[in-house]
Amino acid sequence: MDLDFDKWDGLVPAIAQDWKTGEVYMLAFMDRTAWEKTLATGKVHYHSRSRNKTWMKGEESGHVQLVKEILVDCDEDTVLLKIAQEGGAACHTGYRTCFYRRTGTGGVEVLGEKVFDPEKVYRK
Amino acid sequence: MDLDFDKWDGLVPAIAQDWKTGEVYMLAFMDRTAWEKTLATGKVHYHSRSRNKTWMKGEESGHVQLVKEILVDCDEDTVLLKIAQEGGAACHTGYRTCFYRRTGTGGVEVLGEKVFDPEKVYRK
Repeated sequence: MDLDFDKWDGLVPAIAQDWKTGEVYMLAFMDRTAWEKTLATGKVHYHSRSRNKTWMKGEESGHVQLVKEILVDCDEDTVLLKIAQEGGAACHTGYRTCFYRRTGTGGVEVLGEKVFDPEKVYRK
Repeated sequence: MDLDFDKWDGLVPAIAQDWKTGEVYMLAFMDRTAWEKTLATGKVHYHSRSRNKTWMKGEESGHVQLVKEILVDCDEDTVLLKIAQEGGAACHTGYRTCFYRRTGTGGVEVLGEKVFDPEKVYRK
């Protein structure tokens, strides 16, 4: 199955969801190279526009995402990755999921607690 | 809380997830108008680039998405909508979720069955 990489300048959005709990960890984009590397290795790769490179999630932090199942949407322009999240946290801030804040018409509320200290994991 | 609409030409990706089961129904994009209408009405609105309009999900099919909770990611450029899906199906093809196909290095497998007949729901 081929994906439609034409809608977003060669990229498709990819949602990473826990294969057991259903928790959504993050959304990022894949170019064709990231998609093919993900299929070939079973480890999720994304493409960063700001860094202009394809990268493996966890290549620096060790928080690799292992592919359990890949679902494709009706338009073939979005993928849903069912994954096992190594290290138990996907977000570079240290929270388990990037979606750690709730909002609405009122203010913002932080949900959950940090799983790791980003200053220790990302040694810059 | 404001979202970062600058990364994708005024749009942010929005993931619609069942607020009870955790099933991911679809991904679409919101412009600022769609975001504000979603907050104001409690019903999910998206923006269609191909039709160049903001629309309410279900405005034609009746399959409205009722907002239960809104989560925002670490970069404030993606939203995760916890919703109740009216009519039990989100996809215009009649499947419950747009992610009704599984793929991988092999072929494609269709999961689930159609909930409705799109020719009856979308009277064109």
